[in-house]
Parts: sequence; structure tokens; C-alpha cells
Amino acid sequence: MSRCCLAPSQLTPSSFLRIGQLSNVDLNEDIHELETELPRQHPNEIPHNEKLLSLKYESLDYDNSENQLFLEEERRINHAAFRTVEIKRWVICAMIGILTGLVACFIDIVVENLAGLKYRVVKDNIDKFTAKGGLSFSLLLWATLNASVVMVGSVIVAFIEPVAAGSGIPQIKCYLNGVKIPHVVRLKTLVIKVCGVILSVVGGLAVGKEGPMIHSGSVIAAGISQGRSTSLKRDFKIFEYFRRDTEKRDFVSAGAAAGVSAAFGAPVGGVLFSLEEGASFWNQFLTWRIFFASMISTFTLNSVLSVYHGNAWDLSSPGLINFGRFDSEKMGYTIQEIPIFIFMGVVGGILGALFNALNYWLTMFRIRYIHRPCLQVVEAMLVAAVTATVGFVMIYCSRDCQPIQGSSVAYPLQLFCADGEYNSMATAFFNTPEKSVVNLFHDPPGSYNPMTLGMFTLMYFFLACWTYGLTVSAGVFIPSLLIGAAWGRLFGISLSYLTKGSIWADPGKYALMGAAAQLGGIVRMTLSLTVIMMEATGNVTYGFPIMLVLMTAKIVGDYFVEGLYDMHIQLQSVPFLHWEAPVTSHSLTAREVMSTPVTCLRRIERVGTVVDILSDTSSNHNGFPVVESNADTTQVAGLRGLILRSQLIVLLKHKVFVERANLNLVQRRLKLKDFRDAYPRFPPIQSIHVSQDERDCMIDLSEFMNPSPYTVPQEASLPRVFKLFRALGLRHLVVVDNRNEVVGMVTRKDLARYRLGKEGLEELSLAQT
Amino acid sequence: MSRCCLAPSQLTPSSFLRIGQLSNVDLNEDIHELETELPRQHPNEIPHNEKLLSLKYESLDYDNSENQLFLEEERRINHAAFRTVEIKRWVICAMIGILTGLVACFIDIVVENLAGLKYRVVKDNIDKFTAKGGLSFSLLLWATLNASVVMVGSVIVAFIEPVAAGSGIPQIKCYLNGVKIPHVVRLKTLVIKVCGVILSVVGGLAVGKEGPMIHSGSVIAAGISQGRSTSLKRDFKIFEYFRRDTEKRDFVSAGAAAGVSAAFGAPVGGVLFSLEEGASFWNQFLTWRIFFASMISTFTLNSVLSVYHGNAWDLSSPGLINFGRFDSEKMGYTIQEIPIFIFMGVVGGILGALFNALNYWLTMFRIRYIHRPCLQVVEAMLVAAVTATVGFVMIYCSRDCQPIQGSSVAYPLQLFCADGEYNSMATAFFNTPEKSVVNLFHDPPGSYNPMTLGMFTLMYFFLACWTYGLTVSAGVFIPSLLIGAAWGRLFGISLSYLTKGSIWADPGKYALMGAAAQLGGIVRMTLSLTVIMMEATGNVTYGFPIMLVLMTAKIVGDYFVEGLYDMHIQLQSVPFLHWEAPVTSHSLTAREVMSTPVTCLRRIERVGTVVDILSDTSSNHNGFPVVESNADTTQVAGLRGLILRSQLIVLLKHKVFVERANLNLVQRRLKLKDFRDAYPRFPPIQSIHVSQDERDCMIDLSEFMNPSPYTVPQEASLPRVFKLFRALGLRHLVVVDNRNEVVGMVTRKDLARYRLGKEGLEELSLAQT
Repeated sequence: MSRCCLAPSQLTPSSFLRIGQLSNVDLNEDIHELETELPRQHPNEIPHNEKLLSLKYESLDYDNSENQLFLEEERRINHAAFRTVEIKRWVICAMIGILTGLVACFIDIVVENLAGLKYRVVKDNIDKFTAKGGLSFSLLLWATLNASVVMVGSVIVAFIEPVAAGSGIPQIKCYLNGVKIPHVVRLKTLVIKVCGVILSVVGGLAVGKEGPMIHSGSVIAAGISQGRSTSLKRDFKIFEYFRRDTEKRDFVSAGAAAGVSAAFGAPVGGVLFSLEEGASFWNQFLTWRIFFASMISTFTLNSVLSVYHGNAWDLSSPGLINFGRFDSEKMGYTIQEIPIFIFMGVVGGILGALFNALNYWLTMFRIRYIHRPCLQVVEAMLVAAVTATVGFVMIYCSRDCQPIQGSSVAYPLQLFCADGEYNSMATAFFNTPEKSVVNLFHDPPGSYNPMTLGMFTLMYFFLACWTYGLTVSAGVFIPSLLIGAAWGRLFGISLSYLTKGSIWADPGKYALMGAAAQLGGIVRMTLSLTVIMMEATGNVTYGFPIMLVLMTAKIVGDYFVEGLYDMHIQLQSVPFLHWEAPVTSHSLTAREVMSTPVTCLRRIERVGTVVDILSDTSSNHNGFPVVESNADTTQVAGLRGLILRSQLIVLLKHKVFVERANLNLVQRRLKLKDFRDAYPRFPPIQSIHVSQDERDCMIDLSEFMNPSPYTVPQEASLPRVFKLFRALGLRHLVVVDNRNEVVGMVTRKDLARYRLGKEGLEELSLAQT
Repeated sequence: MSRCCLAPSQLTPSSFLRIGQLSNVDLNEDIHELETELPRQHPNEIPHNEKLLSLKYESLDYDNSENQLFLEEERRINHAAFRTVEIKRWVICAMIGILTGLVACFIDIVVENLAGLKYRVVKDNIDKFTAKGGLSFSLLLWATLNASVVMVGSVIVAFIEPVAAGSGIPQIKCYLNGVKIPHVVRLKTLVIKVCGVILSVVGGLAVGKEGPMIHSGSVIAAGISQGRSTSLKRDFKIFEYFRRDTEKRDFVSAGAAAGVSAAFGAPVGGVLFSLEEGASFWNQFLTWRIFFASMISTFTLNSVLSVYHGNAWDLSSPGLINFGRFDSEKMGYTIQEIPIFIFMGVVGGILGALFNALNYWLTMFRIRYIHRPCLQVVEAMLVAAVTATVGFVMIYCSRDCQPIQGSSVAYPLQLFCADGEYNSMATAFFNTPEKSVVNLFHDPPGSYNPMTLGMFTLMYFFLACWTYGLTVSAGVFIPSLLIGAAWGRLFGISLSYLTKGSIWADPGKYALMGAAAQLGGIVRMTLSLTVIMMEATGNVTYGFPIMLVLMTAKIVGDYFVEGLYDMHIQLQSVPFLHWEAPVTSHSLTAREVMSTPVTCLRRIERVGTVVDILSDTSSNHNGFPVVESNADTTQVAGLRGLILRSQLIVLLKHKVFVERANLNLVQRRLKLKDFRDAYPRFPPIQSIHVSQDERDCMIDLSEFMNPSPYTVPQEASLPRVFKLFRALGLRHLVVVDNRNEVVGMVTRKDLARYRLGKEGLEELSLAQT
């Protein structure tokens, strides 16, 4: 311990609890406050407040620790060896693409078959009972089938791997941002995710299978790039060079892009998604690899599905969902339509904001009251049953009959329609949502009654809103598109009525714009979504109107509430770093923001001290500035380096220390491999036994610490600190004074705490939620 | 002057000459070396070596100087005011888009009319002389017309604004990278560029008008965002907030993107171009604005050209060049074709490398011998005349006659063909290159004789190679596409012959792939080019094969030589920072890389010292670390801040100093506006008169210096320093020791010096070329 920092003995355990949270802390006052606060805990209701940052999330470190070991390795590697590394990166990206494509194929084929089976069974049943009466049996069958399938899907998520719930996009956003969400890139998560999404879609929920592909791709990428699976306890001893956060993140970006690419047949959109949502530092080489993985992914999916569908050489299925070909010659747009598109964007923005606001309240309710797994399963089953019931009632009440001839409906329900006709409401409800979207885009004018579309929009809106956030693995892209396509088509039809003209004859175009507006209003992506929509329609003509619609929807939506993903990230109290520091934060400097005092280590430190510091569960620091050993003298104890908890753990585990009497002896040499083998699940300090004798040994940190950590002076403004932190993907940033002495430490939570609220800058508190 | 740095009196002028260049310099030895080196100058031949970095290029500073003035301003601005700034940014982007679109329209319309006029005159003449013999008159007419038009284009470039030569893409790449190329974003450059490109294209050179649009868009962006024109001496007193390098760069990226967008009708491609070639830090908000500018640009162009062409509501001209619609249903591709596409990529890579290698030698020759403006004009005229002659001879010798009926040739030359037929070679040569490309893509099979295509490819390849680098304003995109389309079509025809089948019936597809391969082999862009090609064809089906082709072409091409733009940047000895530090540079640390000793200033400094330091033309430093004033004591003189030459100049100009006796007096207050008014053309120190009395005054730098400059310790490895420098767009990075004392300074040139050569890491020398 150096003199510049508090010794552990000076701190009571309770004071440690908030070290790292309070700047310029007055310890006495603080201890007092903490003691009175502690008993206020409600065991049954989780106190939740969006103005909190959770302490449970660790950060990832996207800055290499350039210690002597690392530099020695890098210096040994010559140019040819670097080329091998580079080739390995490309090989890994190809594998990511192929596997992601195959997983997408698997999901698609299984869903198609299971859903087909279910719809055939129910259809036969309905056909039977329509004739002889007693359709309530059919309803019961449908609802039970759905609920039981969803139950399985929900049980595996709730009891085995809760992080597999939802679309996984917020989690991947957080991962790429630098937040370690526990279990997010594990093999188990992938298995649960894939099974879960199949069961959700087959269970008839208002969900899509596209969003989860992004998560799946990311897990695949994280797994392959590390060349081992901890879950399976297999280490293939390959790709060991990539066992660190920086490299892993790069591959995870590629995996996410490959997921988007497989989901929508949109390789460029995938790359942009990855960049827009994740990466902050744009590197040309990385981008090419990401693009390569995306291309391979859609190509694999395309090839396999083409073979599966029997037209092997045709390559007509680039994505899980294919919007079908919009023939631009028939369906161009004119300048007069642009204000109309903008208006649709406004509607999409408002509806999207409404969706998010409703979902916000629902999520708050869920966090408070539905946090036990069994309750979550029950809720999922309830939603499944209600979805089936609503669908059934709507179909039952609908009198919208259309001639079956020439239509492309997969499961035409005749119900009470005349022979040779089918119930049009059933095209929308009695179908997987993907197919409904495509039908709304491409069915010829007149296929839907405006009443049908209106009712469908209304019902599906609430169902989708209720569904998002359930403890099932499912995405929100397709339901959003479906809602938007429905009201967009309705809008198009109304326009045709109003203008009595045939200028706007094709409501399919308006369905597309509506879908874009609604999705944009909910998720608030612009650039990547424009490209995804362009690629999914196989057409660039609509690029400009789609962009206008998305941008309008975003601006309007942002006026009310945040995007759905950001909202959920915030509700989980994740210390997420946005693109820029809040605009009015120039008044804050590093001095106010940093955590202080900092626990420092001396360059040659007593093992006992190290163990004590690491064992202190109340502080749980992860990075320790290293200062000069002879800090007891009056000489300045300038910063010499930074060492990480994980590194110290490996050092202790390998007993890298010498007796105090024999300081001249060389301590045991470690290799970078020893650190990589332990990555990323470093053992806890409790599992390492250090005897009393060993506690008196000395440990020399010189060759393991990073001798050139990034630092900022105390005067640096928050935006400046933020920019450095974000651009370099840091985990720890040391604040030094004019004499290079350590005065504080800035971590992710110190920066994420400041947010622009309604009344200017606000500071979130930190909590152990 | 502080004790940590050398006082000016200690340095002889000649030693200053290489301060900033030599690390750990032994001054005596160095002076000796310099003295012997100096006389070796050849007045008539510019000594040139690609292993040099030129000292003449200043850097841009993409790091805000967060001094007190800046922070005070930022703190005064509340949230609403920030929103106004944000809205202004969007307005500027819209204006950039509109103006870029209009400039593109202007170029297009003028070129179309002038070229049409020229071709009609020559065609009439040829038609006349074909009948009565004496076609050499026609040749003379054609060659003279071309040469005289090109002469005008070349004269304005060579004598008025040489930086307007070429496509401008390398210059804009450098600008976005952070190198200040003199005059590159001035209004005069824009005018010369626009006129120059019109004259080059009308003059029949093997050039395109697309590349220069990128430069034009950038100039427009730089001009609008500053709200004034120094050339016109008009200051509109708007957008003053944006008068600094960071903001200006952001707008220039938008301008470049708008240029691509207008050129190819590719808004997404434009954004990607801007990011791939320029920006290093990906910021979501910035990207949206860039995208917006791109969209507006193509939309403006589309609207205006649609009105001009008489189909006002049709929006059918999204870009200057429009590859025409590839009907994907007719022209899909199958898996078997993929190896063929990859092979085409290999061919493209090799041909591209050949092109670049030839152009390299040519450029070296030009730098050595053709550096006088009049010679440059003569060369341009020669090329114009030769181009016309080659075209004429080729057309004359060709016996490839095609029926005129049903073809879309603009100026059908009958020549010696039968009535109702036209000479097919003339479609390629007797036409603007844009139209030739589209013809090659879309003319029905059989429109071209393989012999015609082969000869055309060969001739055009050498002509284009000779043309690039001439002192005219012109782009290389279209000639590359044209060469590629020609050999691609030839390849497609050969395939059809060889397989005797009709599977590969349409050679247009192969023309497209050939064009992509050739362009990729020359310029080596992948992601952005894929998207540009996709958008320009209005079709995403070919995305995957185009990507494969481009990637193969890049890999193959990179094996031989660099891309054309990078090559030219290197030939100009620009200190360009690539994406990453050379892979084997971990052995270097900041200590070896930095420039030392550094000229430091004290916080309260004598005016005379400041003037002397600034006046020292041999050092010409631009950033000065500021250290504590009482540095004469034994106390540590830690780094306190960083001040820029430009700031000091403004301070001196406004006489911001007090007499030494009255140090307590408050010195004159300056506002940020005073600095902004002087931006970017700060007056030279020689223009500021400081009297002898004033020299003894003291200047307090505290509130003007940046109190928190980024620093690195001496132990930081080169890749680490590089990453910090590149990610934050720095101009100066101070190297400090353990006690925060200044030991050196890293600038762009110190980093750009290290390059990966054939035999590992090599160090370029710096020179005053």
C-alpha cells in the first residue's frame, strides 16, 4: 500500500461499500448515511428505480494491457507470423458466417415444419367443427396447443438461462459497449435461445425469430474465436491469441452482423447494425472481416434453404425473412408522395412511442411483481392462450371473405365463407408473422377489407406490446413490421378511396412504408434499418422514402420516449455509455467525477496485502494503480503502472512471489499463456489458498503491470474524459495530479452516472440491485 | 522558457532545422551532417524519393483545445442552445446536399450539351468526308477540338490552382485523415475543379466526372459550414460555432458523402465511402447527418435532372452515372458461376496492379521532369490529341458493323458500314465514357465483336493510365469501369463460346463483374464500393458476387502494389496515418519515437521569448507545452497545459499582455470569437509588430492554454501511442516522465515515419520537398 492511498485498515467495511461511487467523500457522514439506509430492504418486492445504476455489472476491457509479457510476445512475432494471425481472423469470420447461417437454417426449417403441423391440425379441427358446430373445442385446442408449446419455451428460459429471454439485442448492444452481462455469450445461452425462439414462434406468440439471430450469431462468434467451450470443458488449443476482450469483441461484432445478415438477407445492413449499435472505433480491416462474415452467413443460408426447397441453384432465400421482390418499374414513387411518407413517419413515431411507453409500464410491473420464474412461465402461457383466443375471435367475427383462387395463402381457413373463398382475417392471424408481413406487402389490391386491417392492427399492437418482455426468447422486429404493414396498407387503401384515383393503386408500397415507420418508431435505428429494408426488398428505389420515414419516425418518437432497446437497457440499470457525454456536462471535471480514494499497490508488494485487498468483498475493485515501492520517503510516488484483479489472481494462483529475505532471487516466470488459459473465468480469490508464511512474501508486479496506462489530469472536463474513455474502450482511467501522483480513478460507472434528464444534467445513484 | 527545454539561444539555426525530426539527437553530429548535406540541391530536377515524408504539410487538430474560454462558453450554453446548434448542423447538411446536387446537375448538363455539340460537329464532318474521302481532315478537326478544350482545362488547373488536378480523392482522404493540404477546400479550387472537369470530359480524355464530385462536395461543405468565404471576403456571421477543425472535418465528411451520392446515386455508398476513407471515430449522430446530406444530394440531383429531361415526377436519374436497371429475374446467378467471378476478381487484381505500377513510373517521371506548368499543359494537350487519334484509328480500322435499328447509340457513326448500320467501335470511343459503360452493360448480346472489345480494352487501358495524373481535373472511376466492362464483356462472350451454351447468355452481367474487378483492382475499396455498385445498379442480387470480386481483386492487387490513391498519397510524401501502426512496431516506444528536445513555454512568459520562438522559421513548431512559471527552483516543473501557435499569434495580435511591473493588473480579455475570426488563416508572426517595450511585457497563458492535453509515458509502445493519436485525431501528444515533466512531443510526422516495408519496419526520412 502506498502512502497516497488509504490502507485497508483505515477503512471500515461499510465505508468500502460506497467507495467507487462517491467523489470527494466525507467518510464519516457517509458511513452514517449508509448505516441508516441499510435496513430498508423489502424482501419480496425488488425496489426499482430507473435512476439507478447497478453495481452488479462488470466492465470489459477493450484496452490491451501492454505489460512486458505482452510486448515480449509481440516483439517475437515477425511479419509472417502476423500474417498467420490475420489469416486465422479471416478463417474464424468465415466459420462464424457458416455456423450462423446453419443455425438460421435450422431455426427456419424446424419452425416451418412444426408451425405447419400445428396449423394443419388446428385447421382440420376448425374445418371439422365449422360443419357440425362447437367451434369452442377448436379454440380450446388452439389455445392449449399454443400455451403448452410456449410453456416449454418459457420454462427453459426462466429456469435454465434467463439471459436468453427477449431478443438479445439490448444485451449484445451492452456487450459491444463494454458491459459484461453475465452468461451472455455462453454456449448454454445459445442452445436455450435457439430452442426458445422455435417454441415461441411455433407457440403462436406475436414474435419474430429474426432478433434472436443477432444474439445467436454473437454467441457463435464468441465461442469459435476462443477455440474452446468452457461449458463443454473442451479446449481445442487453437486461437489462443484471441483470448482477450478486445479480440473477442471484434469477433462478436462480426457475429452480430452475420446474425442480421442471416435474418434479413442484408449483409451490408448487418455491418451497419454492428457499427451503429456497437463499435465505436471504425477500423477498415475489422469492417471488411465483419462484411465477409455477413456475406458468408447469408450465402450459407441461401444455399442450404435453396437446396431444402428444391431449387438448388437458384439462391432465392437470402434471409430468414424475405420481403419478396418489389418490382420498381410498376411501383415507383413520385415527388408528391413524399409529404405523405413523412406523415406516415410521424404516425409511426407516435405509435412507436406509445408502444414503448406501454411496454415501459408493463416492464416496471414485471420487475416489481413477476420476478419469480414460475410466475413468468404462467404469464407466458397466459399470453399464448390469449393470443390464440383473440385470433380466433377475430377470425370468427370477421366477414371478410376473399376468393381462394390465385391467392398464395398457406392455410386458407374457409370457416363461414362460401366455397372457394377464405377468411381474410385468417391470413393475418392464422399464420406465422413472417408470412403475414409478406402477404400484406404483396397481396393484390382488394385482398383485405379496411375493417379487417383496422381491427388486426389494434389487436396485434396490444398483443405484441404485451408479449415483448415475456420470459421467452423472441424478437420484436417482425411484430413491429406486421403492425406497421397492416396500418400502412390500411392507409394506402384509405388514400385510394379519398383521392378516388388509381395513382396510388398499390397498397403494398404503403404497407412497406408503414412497416418501416412502425419499426423505426419502436427501435429508432435509421441508417442500418434503411439498408436492411433496402436489402430485404431487393430494391434501392425506395431507399430515399424509407430513409425519410425512418428519420421522421425517430425524431417524432424521440420527442416522447426513448427507443425500446435503450429503454430496456436503462430499466436494467446497466452502466451504458452513449456516443457522447451529455451536452451540458462541460462544467464537470475529472476531479468531480472520479472515484477516490484509490487503493494503490506498490511495485513490490507484500502478498498478504494483495490478498487482503482482493478479498475485500465490499470494495471489489478491479484495477489497481501501481506506484513506486519506496513511497514512504518524501519522494514523489508517481504512477508507474496499472494492474488488474485478474492478473493478480493468476499471479497468486501460480505463487509468483519470493521471500522477503531473498528479494534478489528471481521470481517464477509466467507466460502470457497462463493468463489466457484463465480467461475469461478467472477464479475468485477465495479459491486460492495462501498460507501464513506466503503472506509475508513479496510479489514484484513490474513485468505484469501495464506500464503505460492512460491518464488524465484532474482539470480535464467530463466530455474530454468521456471521449478518451469511449474512443479507446477503456475500463480504468487513472486521474493524476501535476506531479503524476494518483488522485483518483474513473471507471465506466463514474461516467455512465451522468445523464441528460428533463431538467438538465442528472446524476444516477449506484445500487446493488 | 523553462529549464526542461533548450533555450533558443542554445540552438543554432541549423540545429533547429531538424528538431522535430530526430529522436535522441546528438546535436553536434547532426549539425555536421546537415551542413554537408545542404549544398546538394539540384535546381532543375526535384529530387524525389518515395521514402520521404514532406515537412511542408501541416496537420489539422481534431482535438478541441479545452481552455478556459472554451469551457466558459460551453458552460454558458444551456440545453436549448445546444439544440439550436444541433439544428444548425442539420440545416448545414441539408444545404451541403442541395448545393452538391446542384453542382452535379450543372456539370452534367453542361457536359451533355458541350459534348453533344462536339460529337455532332465531328460526326457531320466525318459523315461528309467519308463520302468524298480525306478523313484525315476529320481526324485533325477532332484532335484539335479535343486538344484545345483540354488546353483550357489544363491551363486553369496548372496556373491558377494546381490542387484541383486529378480526382481530388487522395486530397480529401488526407484532409479527413488530418493533413492540411494547402488550398484543398477553397472556393477557388471548387470553381477550377468544376470548370476543369467539364473541359476534361468534353475534351474527350479517358476520364470521368464522378471522382471530382467528391472533392467538390467537400469544398462546398467546408465553405457552407464556416458561414463565410475568405476568397470572396464575405463573412455572413453565421455558423461561427463551427469554426474549428473538428466541426469542419465532420461537415467535410458529409460533403464527400454527398459527392459520392450525387455521382453514383448511392447515398449509403457515400456514407460508407466517407467512413471507410476518412473518419476514424464512428459517431452515430454524425453518421446520420452524413446520411441525410447524401440523401438530399441524390434527391436534388434526381429532381433537377428529371425536370431537365422532361419527366418531372419520375425521379429516374439518381446519380451522374446510372448503370441502368439490371433486371434480376432475367439475370440471376448460380452457384457454379462463383468460381468464375472469383477468377475475374483475380484478373481485375492483376490488371489493376499493372495499371498502378505503370502509373507509378509515369508519376515519378512527371515529378522529376514535368513539373513546370507549361510542360504540364503541353502534356495534357498531347494526351488529348493522342486519345482522339487512337479513337479515330480504331474506329477507322474496325469492321464491326451493327444494325442501327433498335440500338440506343447516341451518335451512330456509319463510316464504311452499310446503310442502316453503325460502327460498333464508335459506340465505345465516340461517346462520353459514362454512356460507353452503360452500353457495355446493357447492349444485347452480339452488339460487339470480341475483336472490337479486345482492342478497345488494350488501347483504353494505356490511355487511361497515361491520363491519370495529368494536370487536369478528372476522375479515374469511370475509365476503370469502362476498361473492366470491356474485358468483362469479352470474357462473358468467350465463356458463351466455350461452353457453347446459353446458360451464360447475357454478357452484360460479366461486363458488370469485370467493371467491379477492374475498379477494385485499381482503387482497392471493398465495402463502400460494393454498396456503390449495388446502388448504382439498383439491385441487391449481385451484392454477393460483387463483394467476392472486389475482395479477390483487392487481395490479389495488394500482393503486388498499393491502391492508386494510397500510392499517390505516398508519392506526395504526405504524413498519412493508416488505420493501425505497423504490426511489428511493438519494439518501439514513445521514447524512441518522440521529437526532443521540446520548446516549452512558462505559464507566464516574456513576450519577447514568445515572439522569438514563433519567429524561428527553422523550427516552425505549432504546439508548445506550458510548464509552471517558477521552474527555476528545484521544484518539479510538471506539465500544465498545451498552447498552439495559432493561439499565441492571436494573443500577440490583440496585445494580450501586461507590463512586468504590473503583473497584478488584469490582462485584456479575449473572447473565443477573436480566435474564430482568425480561423483558419492565422496571420504569420512576421505580420505582427511587437515593439521593443512590448517585448519585455509578460503574457499569462493560463486561460488560453489547454490545461488537460493528452499525455503518454515514455514507456508506451508505438502501437499504443498510435492508437491514442489516431482514435482522437490528435495533432500533438506530449510525452512525460514519471514526474509529469515534459520529455518529448509526438506529432503526426513522428508516427507516419514508420512503415512496413518489404524487409520489415522501415523509417522514412523527413525532407523539405
